[in-house]
Amino acid sequence: MDTQQMQMEQMGQFRITVWEEENFQGKHCEFMQECRNIMERDFRKIRSIKVENGVFIGYEYPEFQGQQFILEKGDYPRWEAWSGNSGYRTEHLLSFRPIKCAKHSDSKVTLYECKDLTGRKFELCNDYPSLQAMGWCSKEVASMKVNSGAWVAYQFPGYRGYQYILERDRHEGEYRNYNEYGTQAHSHQVQSIRRIQQ
Amino acid sequence: MDTQQMQMEQMGQFRITVWEEENFQGKHCEFMQECRNIMERDFRKIRSIKVENGVFIGYEYPEFQGQQFILEKGDYPRWEAWSGNSGYRTEHLLSFRPIKCAKHSDSKVTLYECKDLTGRKFELCNDYPSLQAMGWCSKEVASMKVNSGAWVAYQFPGYRGYQYILERDRHEGEYRNYNEYGTQAHSHQVQSIRRIQQ
Repeated sequence: MDTQQMQMEQMGQFRITVWEEENFQGKHCEFMQECRNIMERDFRKIRSIKVENGVFIGYEYPEFQGQQFILEKGDYPRWEAWSGNSGYRTEHLLSFRPIKCAKHSDSKVTLYECKDLTGRKFELCNDYPSLQAMGWCSKEVASMKVNSGAWVAYQFPGYRGYQYILERDRHEGEYRNYNEYGTQAHSHQVQSIRRIQQ
Repeated sequence: MDTQQMQMEQMGQFRITVWEEENFQGKHCEFMQECRNIMERDFRKIRSIKVENGVFIGYEYPEFQGQQFILEKGDYPRWEAWSGNSGYRTEHLLSFRPIKCAKHSDSKVTLYECKDLTGRKFELCNDYPSLQAMGWCSKEVASMKVNSGAWVAYQFPGYRGYQYILERDRHEGEYRNYNEYGTQAHSHQVQSIRRIQQ
């Protein structure tokens, strides 16, 4: 963690409150940093969330495992608000952490046709609700290199389906195969991608 | 319809193929313009879609009624790929039409705090995965005026939940109350918004 990030954490630049019941009811707790397992705080579940500052990733399981959910500033009154995955319904969100390297105005990612950052490539600095409309001929991306900032890639066009958060400061920004996109990823299917705004 | 739009339709600038079964199987049909009711083509349902050119809106019911689904270029192998509404599962998509006024580089919308385009306002020209992060204090938008282009507004942050497509060339771009956002809209809740790319 660099000095700027430490200062942001100390200044409350990351703040999230989670509730055990829908619509911000019941037991709740505020966090200004990561939480590896909400059950260790005697929560049985999380059913509503407010992100007050910064951006977080939520995970389906403890220790940052399973489906990923990008959590930007705003109100998430029910689990449907963060899931966005109609087909793979999961009501679990058991761990979360702040995303510290998002830099909206300076984000760059390179997509590759083949794994291990090989084959045809395409460099992006902007949001693309449809990679095919941008000229990428396939519905798959086999590997990706984040050169700067943080990104969220999605299984389907229009920012739908599985969410994969890709950060410059994880794996040195290298995602060399689909199983590095996320622990639940089971294909290379990626049809939209966007920058994360801090 | 102006001359440019007619030319685009004639040149196949809008092309969508729909299938009766998942994964592009079974009976299918290609369209280069709107379809008011797929059941009149002897389809019982739609279960997969490819958008080959342009951008379309899909609707839950015939005659452009019910939930709206933005359909950008790409592959939609199952209904979950276009729905994105985990909480209000609908597997219906029975009518669709092209969006003709999308102009990504020249899109402007004004959000209003109160209905009938009154109260505090905010003018946007860019994509916002979190309106609250941008400085909008509420999780609601009471009315909107599309000054140019076409937009998709969402119930929740991060482009999730109900989708409302807003176009300059419908209602003269004026959406004066939430029930004009869509026939299924039942609140002013809008927490993210983005431009539609042609």
